[in-house]
Amino acid sequence: MIERDEAFLLRTGRTPGTLAKALAAIAEFGATIGEIETVYIGAEHNIREVTVIAPGDVSIEDMQAALDAIDGVEVVQEHVDKVFARHEGGKLKVLPTVEVQTLPDMRRVYTPGVARVSEAIHKDPDLADRYTWKGRTIAVVSDGSRVLGLGDIGPVASLPVMEGKAMFYSMLVGLNAVPIVLDVHEPDEIVRVTKAIAPGFAGIHLEDIATPGVYEVEARLDAELDVPVMHDDQHGTAVVLLAAVLSATHQLGLEMPKLTFGQVGLGAAGSAIAQLATSFPFAGVIAYDPAQVAVDHLVGRADDACELDAGSDDADFDSVVDNADVLVLTTGRAGLLPAERVREGQVIFALTNPVAEIHPREAQAAGAALATDGSIVNNVLAYPGLFKGALESKASSITLAMKRAAATALKDLAGDRLLPDPLDPAVHERVAVAVAAEAD
Amino acid sequence: MIERDEAFLLRTGRTPGTLAKALAAIAEFGATIGEIETVYIGAEHNIREVTVIAPGDVSIEDMQAALDAIDGVEVVQEHVDKVFARHEGGKLKVLPTVEVQTLPDMRRVYTPGVARVSEAIHKDPDLADRYTWKGRTIAVVSDGSRVLGLGDIGPVASLPVMEGKAMFYSMLVGLNAVPIVLDVHEPDEIVRVTKAIAPGFAGIHLEDIATPGVYEVEARLDAELDVPVMHDDQHGTAVVLLAAVLSATHQLGLEMPKLTFGQVGLGAAGSAIAQLATSFPFAGVIAYDPAQVAVDHLVGRADDACELDAGSDDADFDSVVDNADVLVLTTGRAGLLPAERVREGQVIFALTNPVAEIHPREAQAAGAALATDGSIVNNVLAYPGLFKGALESKASSITLAMKRAAATALKDLAGDRLLPDPLDPAVHERVAVAVAAEAD
Repeated sequence: MIERDEAFLLRTGRTPGTLAKALAAIAEFGATIGEIETVYIGAEHNIREVTVIAPGDVSIEDMQAALDAIDGVEVVQEHVDKVFARHEGGKLKVLPTVEVQTLPDMRRVYTPGVARVSEAIHKDPDLADRYTWKGRTIAVVSDGSRVLGLGDIGPVASLPVMEGKAMFYSMLVGLNAVPIVLDVHEPDEIVRVTKAIAPGFAGIHLEDIATPGVYEVEARLDAELDVPVMHDDQHGTAVVLLAAVLSATHQLGLEMPKLTFGQVGLGAAGSAIAQLATSFPFAGVIAYDPAQVAVDHLVGRADDACELDAGSDDADFDSVVDNADVLVLTTGRAGLLPAERVREGQVIFALTNPVAEIHPREAQAAGAALATDGSIVNNVLAYPGLFKGALESKASSITLAMKRAAATALKDLAGDRLLPDPLDPAVHERVAVAVAAEAD
Repeated sequence: MIERDEAFLLRTGRTPGTLAKALAAIAEFGATIGEIETVYIGAEHNIREVTVIAPGDVSIEDMQAALDAIDGVEVVQEHVDKVFARHEGGKLKVLPTVEVQTLPDMRRVYTPGVARVSEAIHKDPDLADRYTWKGRTIAVVSDGSRVLGLGDIGPVASLPVMEGKAMFYSMLVGLNAVPIVLDVHEPDEIVRVTKAIAPGFAGIHLEDIATPGVYEVEARLDAELDVPVMHDDQHGTAVVLLAAVLSATHQLGLEMPKLTFGQVGLGAAGSAIAQLATSFPFAGVIAYDPAQVAVDHLVGRADDACELDAGSDDADFDSVVDNADVLVLTTGRAGLLPAERVREGQVIFALTNPVAEIHPREAQAAGAALATDGSIVNNVLAYPGLFKGALESKASSITLAMKRAAATALKDLAGDRLLPDPLDPAVHERVAVAVAAEAD
């Protein structure tokens, strides 16, 4: 069930408690209150725009009627669907970086001048990074086969998500990113098309492509192209999650070499999380998935900073849950972990959306030292800095060492929270510097 | 031979005639003077930035030495290559259209809010035009196989040209355009890749792809996609050239039904020019190319507003040259047309670059009523308005009627010139309106 942001323009009389009644009426629908903007404060009444974060199945008309029924409260105009308003016309635009005001200007940026630039690049293709936008431009590629919690909704419907991904490249690290949504779905076809368009881009960001096909797509593109390629659903998530784990264990005063890292669920995110965990000096990583193919995929990619146990009899579901000091759950199964299985002092990340394997409050009540759900993991913290660092260091791949550096940088920037503010450009700059320093 | 724009920062003493000597020295190299910017006017000397349009084979060092050798003239710093300076970092950038300053903002443009927009588009794909950038975004697609006069320089080297094409969409008609340069060259592969990326775009602008393959590429994409597809080298050129022809005959007081339109050379541009000419009520169109396949291609696409004679014994090179009242040459052969072949009162467009089939001055001296070369044909006049008109009318193709409307609009806007100012956005707006009015 997907939440929605709605906004009401509320006129409330100045009798004390009127606004409180309106907010209570909204709460009756299971909705929470977001931003409140004061539009007008008068002698008789006030007007405020109240943003409501409502469960997807709530009738906005019913909510409006409930508000209107309160004495002294009036919804003064149609509610505004703030989400749709924000997406109107799309979230990206392409602009020239140069002004063309005269025909001589035009002769330089266009024909005949441009021919000399093309000739120079033809002789030395590396000049493209300098004299075209290529060196600063990422393709955000998806076939729309596994979008958020929506599943296989196809390329066009995935476009709003890819635009969202792309806009943060510009906002946060000053790179260009172009959404490329593909009407092909076989790994071989995705590879073929992405390679065909690759000459115009400095990096390939893969997004919301279904497993297991995406594993082959990522591996082949990374091997066959000389620019960095990264599947964000795997590695962006893994970097952010590991940063949160590092923050949590640090703040709890736990020592990594004494901790067993447990991972249950080896889908795209879970597999990448377990892989990245093996690059840190934990006492060990134990991982479980009912699908042998998922286990095999992880085993083939594990790093060697600590021991990995996956697929053995000692790494079944019960063993992982019982032995993990840090337990990460990416199972897709709401409520999977009963409170009585929580071990005193465990650190639990129950990441399944929208309803986690165990509610953080429940886990903490059952003795967990720290528990949280998927709402803390925001991939925007990782991918812009990862690609910026890779581009600045002219890396041809984003290696495990670079991801580890990104996770460590995020932990260092988190202060007394688990993760830093994703809207702070300084955070991304620091991640990029850390990533570039680890590039081969 | 490609011209280049260079700029010298010239310090000239205040003795009268010093600047004139400097300009004369530049002229000795066969170069002309572009913009002159006055940087400093002092008691002892002046400093000006002088832009020089020089033949590609001129040594800039020699020119600088020649300038320094003049008494009272000094080149005060290294010359600036204005073309390369203009292309530094590329000519395009991608920016967000929305501001994201708070986490609630982020929740709307990104997860979880964006999921609702994707769901809505999944249910009704037409909503993508409204809630993504798709409805306003063109892909400028090339494989770099026939770039300007440079030939097959490949995808990366073609990128500066595609960026140039793309930037004018933004500047002139407010559309987004994204350069997509392809590392595949077989028509079948180009079609496959372009179709695969098509879900994210409202139109496909094909550019600098070699004939004859591009004919198949354009025809198949136009048939198989529901968005407009146009090969600019053909149809952009044809629209602009026909507009110039309409202006010329109008200004000379010639009546179209009494004029025979002759086309020599049926490559991409020539074939499209002859095709578009058959949609106007000329007395007839006669066309010649030594390659039968080129003739056949044209015959298959001719319109029926006037008779086409191509491939018959009466349409050989001599017949076309002798009988054409309006003669268009796109042969790639410099100096092909001897002055003695020019007929009194002929209108001649000799379009081969950089050296035409006949120099306009020579043709006019030999009796032509009007003669010009390829420098007047600037495709920027056509493609932005063609696509804008097609998008606004939700046309699935850019038809011959729409191209004819564009040519007519450009002629109407030209005033007493052959063509209007390509940098005037009002021109493109008018073309778009004319094109949209003719859409099916």
